[in-house]
Amino acid sequence: MVSRLKRLLIGRPMRSGEIEGEKLGKLKALAVLSSDALSSVAYGTEQILLVLMAAGFAAVWYSLPISLAVLGLLLILILSYRQTIYAYPAGGGAYIVAKDNLGVPTGLLAGGSLLVDYILTVAVSSSAGTDAITSAFPSLHEHRVLIALIMIVFLTVMNLRGVTESASVLAIPIYLFVFAIFVLIVSGIVKYLTGGIHADVPELGATVSNISLFLLLKAFSSGCSALTGVEAVSNAIPNFKKPAERNAAATLIMMGAILGAMFIGISLLAYWYGISPDPKQTVVSQIAASTFGRGALYYAIQGVTALILFLAANTAYSAFPLLAFMLAKDKYMPHAFMVRGDRLGFSNGIIFLGVFSALLVVLFHGDTENLIPLYAVGVFIPFTLSQLGMMIRWLKLRPAEWIGRFAVNTIGMLTTLSITLIFIFTKFAHVWMVFVFLPIVIGLFYQIQRHYINTAAELRINLDTDKPCIKGSTIVVPVAGITRVVMNSLGYAKSLTDNVVAVYVGFDDEEIERMEKKWEEWNPGVRLITLRSSYRSIIRPIMKFIDTIEWKTADTDHITVLIPQFIAKHWWQHILHNQSSLLLRAYLYNQKDVVIATVPYHLKR
Amino acid sequence: MVSRLKRLLIGRPMRSGEIEGEKLGKLKALAVLSSDALSSVAYGTEQILLVLMAAGFAAVWYSLPISLAVLGLLLILILSYRQTIYAYPAGGGAYIVAKDNLGVPTGLLAGGSLLVDYILTVAVSSSAGTDAITSAFPSLHEHRVLIALIMIVFLTVMNLRGVTESASVLAIPIYLFVFAIFVLIVSGIVKYLTGGIHADVPELGATVSNISLFLLLKAFSSGCSALTGVEAVSNAIPNFKKPAERNAAATLIMMGAILGAMFIGISLLAYWYGISPDPKQTVVSQIAASTFGRGALYYAIQGVTALILFLAANTAYSAFPLLAFMLAKDKYMPHAFMVRGDRLGFSNGIIFLGVFSALLVVLFHGDTENLIPLYAVGVFIPFTLSQLGMMIRWLKLRPAEWIGRFAVNTIGMLTTLSITLIFIFTKFAHVWMVFVFLPIVIGLFYQIQRHYINTAAELRINLDTDKPCIKGSTIVVPVAGITRVVMNSLGYAKSLTDNVVAVYVGFDDEEIERMEKKWEEWNPGVRLITLRSSYRSIIRPIMKFIDTIEWKTADTDHITVLIPQFIAKHWWQHILHNQSSLLLRAYLYNQKDVVIATVPYHLKR
Repeated sequence: MVSRLKRLLIGRPMRSGEIEGEKLGKLKALAVLSSDALSSVAYGTEQILLVLMAAGFAAVWYSLPISLAVLGLLLILILSYRQTIYAYPAGGGAYIVAKDNLGVPTGLLAGGSLLVDYILTVAVSSSAGTDAITSAFPSLHEHRVLIALIMIVFLTVMNLRGVTESASVLAIPIYLFVFAIFVLIVSGIVKYLTGGIHADVPELGATVSNISLFLLLKAFSSGCSALTGVEAVSNAIPNFKKPAERNAAATLIMMGAILGAMFIGISLLAYWYGISPDPKQTVVSQIAASTFGRGALYYAIQGVTALILFLAANTAYSAFPLLAFMLAKDKYMPHAFMVRGDRLGFSNGIIFLGVFSALLVVLFHGDTENLIPLYAVGVFIPFTLSQLGMMIRWLKLRPAEWIGRFAVNTIGMLTTLSITLIFIFTKFAHVWMVFVFLPIVIGLFYQIQRHYINTAAELRINLDTDKPCIKGSTIVVPVAGITRVVMNSLGYAKSLTDNVVAVYVGFDDEEIERMEKKWEEWNPGVRLITLRSSYRSIIRPIMKFIDTIEWKTADTDHITVLIPQFIAKHWWQHILHNQSSLLLRAYLYNQKDVVIATVPYHLKR
Repeated sequence: MVSRLKRLLIGRPMRSGEIEGEKLGKLKALAVLSSDALSSVAYGTEQILLVLMAAGFAAVWYSLPISLAVLGLLLILILSYRQTIYAYPAGGGAYIVAKDNLGVPTGLLAGGSLLVDYILTVAVSSSAGTDAITSAFPSLHEHRVLIALIMIVFLTVMNLRGVTESASVLAIPIYLFVFAIFVLIVSGIVKYLTGGIHADVPELGATVSNISLFLLLKAFSSGCSALTGVEAVSNAIPNFKKPAERNAAATLIMMGAILGAMFIGISLLAYWYGISPDPKQTVVSQIAASTFGRGALYYAIQGVTALILFLAANTAYSAFPLLAFMLAKDKYMPHAFMVRGDRLGFSNGIIFLGVFSALLVVLFHGDTENLIPLYAVGVFIPFTLSQLGMMIRWLKLRPAEWIGRFAVNTIGMLTTLSITLIFIFTKFAHVWMVFVFLPIVIGLFYQIQRHYINTAAELRINLDTDKPCIKGSTIVVPVAGITRVVMNSLGYAKSLTDNVVAVYVGFDDEEIERMEKKWEEWNPGVRLITLRSSYRSIIRPIMKFIDTIEWKTADTDHITVLIPQFIAKHWWQHILHNQSSLLLRAYLYNQKDVVIATVPYHLKR
C-alpha cells in the first residue's frame, strides 16, 4: 500500500546510471535556479521607495540612482560568482569557497547560515504566495496556513520526483512571468516616449531637505534584498549537463541580465508614473494598472506574479539538498543526506527542508514577514565570506590577470559586508536571532563530526594484525513452555554447540515443579534451569542469569541468547501475544555484550 | 526517568505473596463497590417524577407506589445475587452464571454487554460529576472535557496503586454521602412529624384522568436505573478477604439496605414537600433547601453529592479488570488482561478502561447524557441472563428448598426482562446502537479465541516423538566494510561453523573492486561475495541472495543471517548512522525462515 502510493507520487525508481539524464540544460536550469532571484523584481523597487518616503515624496527620484547602485552590485556579484564557478567547477557554494580559503570554521559559518536561510526562504515565499492568493480571494484567509502547507507539500513531491521533471513543470510560469514583465516594461517605455504619461514627479537631482546618508544606505540595503538567490547557480553546478561550468556560467549571466533589466525597468516606470508605495496595492500592480488599465492584461500580470512568489521557494529545494550533501560528505551532517533516493535526488535533504519550513509556517501561523530581514542577513553573510575567500585565493595563487579579479571580489566583499552591517544595525530587533541560531548550528556540526571521527577510530582495524578470533560458545535459550517453537530453537542451538542451557521463569513453586517434570518427560538433551520471580517480571531474572553466565564464561566463550519467537500472520494477532521476547531483546541489545539470535516460527493461520 | 515517574505515581512493585494484604474487608468493599449503586439515589426519584409529570402534577403521588415497586425489585435482585454469590464463590458475574447454565454464546452476550457498560459508566459518571462542578462554577464550563479527563486519569492512577489503597481514599466521600443523606432524611421526617411541612400535595389514591399503564411502566423503568451497579459485588468476590463469599454476601445486603432506605426516604420527602422536577435544580437539592434552608448544611449535601457522582465510576474500575481477566482466562480476550501489574491489580484492564472511557468523553465533548439509556440496557441484559441462568441451575441441581430459590430468580428474571423490553421500546432511538456493538464485540471474542486455539494446536508437540533435530549450519554475514564490528562478527560466526560467507553490496564496479582487493589483503578466512545494486538499495540484493542460499541448503542446514551492529552510546547518535541493519532485520523477520542474529558492538564514546 505505502509503496504503491509512493510509486504514484514519486514515480518508478531509477537506476544509478540514469543520472546523466537528470542533469539540467541551460534553459531548464534557469527555470529551476532563478525563481528566487527573479521573483525579487516583484517587491525590490517597492522596498526602496518605502524607505525613501520617510523623507517625503520629493525624495523618490533617489530610487533611480539607488536602483543603478543595486544594478552595479548585481553586476559585481555576477562577475564574482562567475569567477567562483570556474575556480570551483565541482560546485562552489559559499561553504566550499570559505572553507577552502578561510578555514573550516568560516566555511561552517557560511554553510550553516545558508542552510537556515533556505528553510526560511521556503517558509517566507510560501507564505507570501498565500498572501497573494488570499488578497484575491479574501474568503480563503482563514485557511492560509493550510494553503501554504499544501504548496510546500507540492514542491516537496515535485522535487522528490526529480530535478528535470520539476524543471519541466516549473519552467512555464517562470518564463511567463519574465515575458509578462518585459511586455509591461516595453509598453510602459513606448507610452512614455509617445508622451502618454503625465505625472507630476520630482526632477532628478532636486534638493531634498531632510535626506540623510543613513536613509539612503537603508534604502540601498532594502533594494539589495532583490539580490538574494543569485548564489544558487554556483551551488548547483553538479546538477548541470556537461560541460557543467560553462553551462552554469552562461546560466548565471542570463539570469543576471534578465534580473537587471527587469529591476531597472520597473524602477524607471515607477519614477515616470510618480508612484508612491501603497499598503493596499503593490508597486507592480500600480504600474500595470496605469499602463494597461484594469483589464485582462493587468490580471494576467498579477496572477503570474503571485505564482512566481510561490515558486521562489523552489530554488531552495535545489540548493539545500546539495549543500547538505557537501556538509555530510565532510561529516558535519548525518550521512543520510548523502543517500540518493529512488529518483536520484537527495531525498532526505528535500524532505528535511519541507518538514522544517512547514514547521516554521505552522509556528508563525503563516505570518512570516518578520522573518524577511533574518533571511536577508542569512544570505549576505555567506555572500561576504565567499568573496573574502575568493580574494584570499587570488592572493595565494596569483594567476594571470589576478589583480582585476581580486579587485572585483574586493569591491563585492566590501559592498556585501556593508549591507550585512547595515542590516544588523538598522533591523537588529528582527535579526538578533541569527546570533543565537548560528552558534547552535555550528556547534551541532562539530559535535556530529566528532562523533563520526571517534566512531571511525574505534572501529578501524589493522588489516595485518587484527584477524577474526575463534572462541567457544554458550547458548542460552529462554523458554516459556514446551512447544514447537522451543523445539526448533533447541534443535538449532544443539546444531551449533553442545553447550546449550534452557532457562524458565516461573511465578510460583507449583508452576516451576510442573515445568521441571514435563521437561524431564520430554528429555530434549538440554539442561533446564528454572528461576523463580516474585515480582512477576520475566526480564529481570533472565538478565540476572545472563550476568552470571557472562561472569563465568565471557573470556572463553561467545554467549548467545537464542530467543524463540513465533510470528503471527496478521498484525492484529500480535496484540494477542505477550511481547516479552521483544522486550527482552531490547534490554539485552542495549545493556549486554551478548549475541541475540531470533529463531522465527511463522504461524500458518 | 519513565520508571521513576511510574514509581512515584503507582508506588513500589509488590511481591506476588503480598496479594492477601490487598484483599478487602466488608467496610472497604462497600466503599469500593457501592459507589455506582448508591450514587443512583442522587437522581433515581427525579427520573420517576420526570415521567409522571407528563400526566400533570396530580400524578406525583404515583411516585410512592412506584418507589415501593423499585424497592421490591431491589429486594429481589439482592436476594437473587446473594444466591449467586453462594453458588459461585469464585466470582459469579453474569458472564460466569450465564456461560455455566445457558451456554457460551449467552455468557459472551452477558460479558460483552457488561464490558461495554463499564466503559459507558466511567464516561457517563465522569461527565455527570463535571456537570455538577460546572453548575457551581460556570466559568469552568469550557474546560469540561479537560476536567472529566483529569478525573479519569485520577481514578486510573488510584486503581493502578492497588485496591486497598484506593478503598482507603474513596471510603471517606462515600460514607460522608451516606451520612449526609440520612441526616437529611431524618431531619425531614422529624420536620414532617412535628407539622413543619405545609405543602399542597395530591392525596394518595387520588384519581388522575390521563394516566396510562405505559406511562407508569416507563416511570418504573426509569426508576430502575437506580439499580445499576448492584451486580458489582458478585463480580468482585475474588477481591474479598476470606471467607470471601460470606463477606461478599454481607456487603451486598448492607448495600441493599442502605440503598433501599435512602431511595424510599428521598421519594417520601419529595412527596411530602410536593416537589416537582425542575431543570435548574435537582430534586435532592430542593429537598435539602426546604429542610435546611440554603445554609452550610445545604452546600455540604450538594458538594458530597457531586463527589459521589464522580466516584460512581470507581465501581467500574473494580469490576472491569476482573471480568476482562475471566474472559481472557477463557481465551476470549487477549492474555494481557491476565497479567498482574506491579501493584497486583490487573493493570492492563484498568488502563484499557481509562483510555476507552476518555475516548468516549472526548468524542462526545463531555455531553454523555444520550449514553444513559444505552448504559441502562447494558446492565439489564446481563441482569436478566444471570437470573435465567440461576433458574436453569436450580432446575438442574434441585437442592433442598430449591423451589423458593427458583421462585426468587423467576420473579427477578421476569421483572428485569420486562424492564429491558420497556427500555428498548420506549427509548429505541438511543438504544439501537447496542444491537450494532454487541454482535461486533461477540464476534471479536470468537475470533480471538479461534486464534488462540489454532496457535496452540500448531505449536503443540508430542513429548514422546517430537525431539530437537540437529542439522548443519550456514552463516551469512552482510558486511558494509572492514571494521572492528565486522571482525567480531566473523570471529563469532567462525566459532560456530566453517560454513561462513560474507556478502557485500556495492553501488558501482569501482567500489566493489576496491572492497574485493582490501578483503584479499585482510584475508580473514571467510569467502566474500559481492553484489552490485543498480537501484542503490542494500536490502533487495541481500534478500535475493538469501533466497538463493535457502533454495540450495535449507533442507540440510539451518541458515543464520548474522548482522553486525554497533550500538551508539546516546540516542541522538543513532540519527547519524544509517539504520539499514534494522531494516534488513525487519524484512528478514517477516519474510524468511532464517535465524537472525545480531552481534552487538557497544561504542565507547
